[in-house]
Amino acid sequence: MTDKTEEKSLDPENWEAFRALAHEMLDQALEHMATCRERPVWKPVPNEAKQSLMEPLPLEAQNTKEIADTVTKSILPYGVGNTHPKFFGWVHGSGTPGNIIAEIAAAAMNANLGGRDHAAIYVERQVISWCREIFQFPPTSSGLVVSGTSMASLIALKTARDKKLGIDVRKKGIGAEGAKLTAYASAQAHACIGKTFDILGLGQKALRPIPVNSNYEMDMDSLRAAIEKDIADGNQPFCVVGTAGTVNTGAIDDLAAISNIAEQYDLWFHVDGAFGALGWLCDDIRPKLAGLDQAHSIAFDFHKWMHVNYDAGFVLVRDGEAHRRSFSARPDYLSPEERGLAGGNPWFCEYGLELSRGFRALKIWWQIKEHGLIRIGQKISDNCNQARYLGTLISKEAELELLAPIGLNIVCFRYRAPNKSEKELAVLNREIVLQLQENGLAAPSTTILGGKLAIRVNITNHRTQLKDCTELIADCLKLGNKLK
Amino acid sequence: MTDKTEEKSLDPENWEAFRALAHEMLDQALEHMATCRERPVWKPVPNEAKQSLMEPLPLEAQNTKEIADTVTKSILPYGVGNTHPKFFGWVHGSGTPGNIIAEIAAAAMNANLGGRDHAAIYVERQVISWCREIFQFPPTSSGLVVSGTSMASLIALKTARDKKLGIDVRKKGIGAEGAKLTAYASAQAHACIGKTFDILGLGQKALRPIPVNSNYEMDMDSLRAAIEKDIADGNQPFCVVGTAGTVNTGAIDDLAAISNIAEQYDLWFHVDGAFGALGWLCDDIRPKLAGLDQAHSIAFDFHKWMHVNYDAGFVLVRDGEAHRRSFSARPDYLSPEERGLAGGNPWFCEYGLELSRGFRALKIWWQIKEHGLIRIGQKISDNCNQARYLGTLISKEAELELLAPIGLNIVCFRYRAPNKSEKELAVLNREIVLQLQENGLAAPSTTILGGKLAIRVNITNHRTQLKDCTELIADCLKLGNKLK
Repeated sequence: MTDKTEEKSLDPENWEAFRALAHEMLDQALEHMATCRERPVWKPVPNEAKQSLMEPLPLEAQNTKEIADTVTKSILPYGVGNTHPKFFGWVHGSGTPGNIIAEIAAAAMNANLGGRDHAAIYVERQVISWCREIFQFPPTSSGLVVSGTSMASLIALKTARDKKLGIDVRKKGIGAEGAKLTAYASAQAHACIGKTFDILGLGQKALRPIPVNSNYEMDMDSLRAAIEKDIADGNQPFCVVGTAGTVNTGAIDDLAAISNIAEQYDLWFHVDGAFGALGWLCDDIRPKLAGLDQAHSIAFDFHKWMHVNYDAGFVLVRDGEAHRRSFSARPDYLSPEERGLAGGNPWFCEYGLELSRGFRALKIWWQIKEHGLIRIGQKISDNCNQARYLGTLISKEAELELLAPIGLNIVCFRYRAPNKSEKELAVLNREIVLQLQENGLAAPSTTILGGKLAIRVNITNHRTQLKDCTELIADCLKLGNKLK
Repeated sequence: MTDKTEEKSLDPENWEAFRALAHEMLDQALEHMATCRERPVWKPVPNEAKQSLMEPLPLEAQNTKEIADTVTKSILPYGVGNTHPKFFGWVHGSGTPGNIIAEIAAAAMNANLGGRDHAAIYVERQVISWCREIFQFPPTSSGLVVSGTSMASLIALKTARDKKLGIDVRKKGIGAEGAKLTAYASAQAHACIGKTFDILGLGQKALRPIPVNSNYEMDMDSLRAAIEKDIADGNQPFCVVGTAGTVNTGAIDDLAAISNIAEQYDLWFHVDGAFGALGWLCDDIRPKLAGLDQAHSIAFDFHKWMHVNYDAGFVLVRDGEAHRRSFSARPDYLSPEERGLAGGNPWFCEYGLELSRGFRALKIWWQIKEHGLIRIGQKISDNCNQARYLGTLISKEAELELLAPIGLNIVCFRYRAPNKSEKELAVLNREIVLQLQENGLAAPSTTILGGKLAIRVNITNHRTQLKDCTELIADCLKLGNKLK
């Protein structure tokens, strides 16, 4: 029965050499973070690096030193750039070195937070309790650390669906009644909301896109009209999604007004606050988010404006019992116990899709403690200041044109040149963005607003300084003048 | 516009002190892993530790040294126990120190693998390519690293749903046609499959539980009968789920037979291989999995039998185009580019729910390279040997009774005592498990088989040795004799 390998685990045979290698990797990792400003924002992955990531299936064990070398030579240097002060693309958080320490401890524990009674569970409970406190949700509300706002929205909207149709829907399916459910979100709402309706079987069409005003905020009259029309048509409005920070322009819907309408029509009021919800930490932004604390559910990311490492999001649900009812399933092999390892009830797997859940909570807990919410909030305010500063710079340049109001931290603009068609301007501005990226100068992204291709600058970056904004505008002008 | 804080990032002010702290945490982490056998498998989280995880919302920054102390004193020592050689509960992988190195590098990069062109993307592509190679799937198949089998099953079964109903279902919802869809899985199938049907709007009832034979494998005659009955009733069978390793007993359905039936009735053949699929790596287990390589989709976990840290699972879909069609959504702000940072198409966010995706792929890639698939497979075989060895020990003891055949790596048994009712035996065996856990001797879990409460020993543990099995049985006997 015994054989030669049986007593040999996958642990290192030479622990000392292994320790040395781990410390070496840590030095490289810290050096990489400490020097991020000195490197280009982004550079294409070179062919040799790609080649080293195209090897046949490794059947035999490889030398750990050589694997580590591949990491430091072919992987580490070719990141997306979001740790750099001049990364302005999409909505990426920029991370902090503290995340490394938290990940080391989490990796050593290898905890599964699906449930059971162990310290990691108490860390996640602490994070949940803090989130309740931040958004002034009641003790009966529930929360769950998830991968991000997509998952958070799925959990929130499934809870809303099941509450509307009755919990029996979990067994019976949504059926004919489900086909009548309708919901509402701004035409600028994130694509993950539509995807959620698709997944839940309701279909993306059940989510009515409500037109926006000139500030890209949901138009309240249109919202009311859409609800009334659906009622008249025999549909069943059940949910309205407010956006706290659209991806395109950072617009914040009038959440207080939405909350009132939701109450009037008995709708579940969900807020997609992927990055914007954490503006609640800032005295100067909180007023724009008035009504957020009235939501039935909030979805947001820690990996954006709180700079927790990818991935880390959260869902907060006011009616904690409805949330649990919508996801709980405890077969025989997951029976709860009052004592022992199977204690710690309720288990987190009763609040979401996943039964195996990594220890994301630790890096969130660490981040909040290391920096404190005042300082994290200050950096959010700083980013909004920087966006306004960018707006000022743009307004001073005849060659540049702002394409949307600056509601929060996102600036959409373009280089304009006389006698250029819309199509030519799109080509020109796309080329400016591509060359900024390819030259490693800065990494904005693009979007389309009112048919116009915009250079889109998003600042969710604690390393960005005003000088980075000044340089970005100078580089845009230089490239625009060269390429026009 | 400038203020005092604007130029101060969240990076450490004193990098040298920070480096020292990070190295100290790494030493603690490695020491924790190297000495895991010397500690009790599990101990309850003490009240002082719980107290330190119940503090008010941190508004001010805290001392990093003190935060690290809380981690090492109140969190690190109180894990679930799955890194210990005598952890036998549920189905947990036991992790490896190599995961720490991979996580350090991943944390320094803070990559978002939703898409774009950067090295992390090529690492995940490599992992996908290896998974294709392992299960002999064609180059047109697609894969995605996910949190685990729950998410993997959701992705696979949504693809199946949308393929059956037509891609328009994403917009229109499942409607009346969706209400007729039916699917089939063993009565011993994992609860995540039912949950998936619930989430997708089809309802858990659409998943017909097929009776199992005495080996706890799906009964093929019953499967055919259920399909025929549904067709006769006007329902639309669309999917059959085979289980490669049930949670209760480790039973493996006859996948080749299921594959034939699936072909005959034009059903999507999905395999839940959460832990069992990786038995494919072992010459002695592969024959039991015959037919796995015929599946339309396979869901499995790296964090179980490959000992990659939590969480890390995978979905492999034969029809890669159907997979992409079922999840892709690229709004204006995610426009693809041929060049620059927005290259790297297709993006991974087109294959799943999540747009923000952490760099799980690195720890998987590292694990496969560090140990090689032969060695990983050998440890899987070792665990099955150990399970059979346990079975031999149990059969030799009059006080012990095996409650299910040992198909793979799971052993369900109980202590029996004359003149005890079923209810009393349940109480006794539950108490044995609780005391094993509470005394830190070993950590099996419980389940119920044929109405009998079983001590359930699962071995997905590269640190377990035969002597651990011997000691477990001795401890069970000692406790049983004491408690009866």
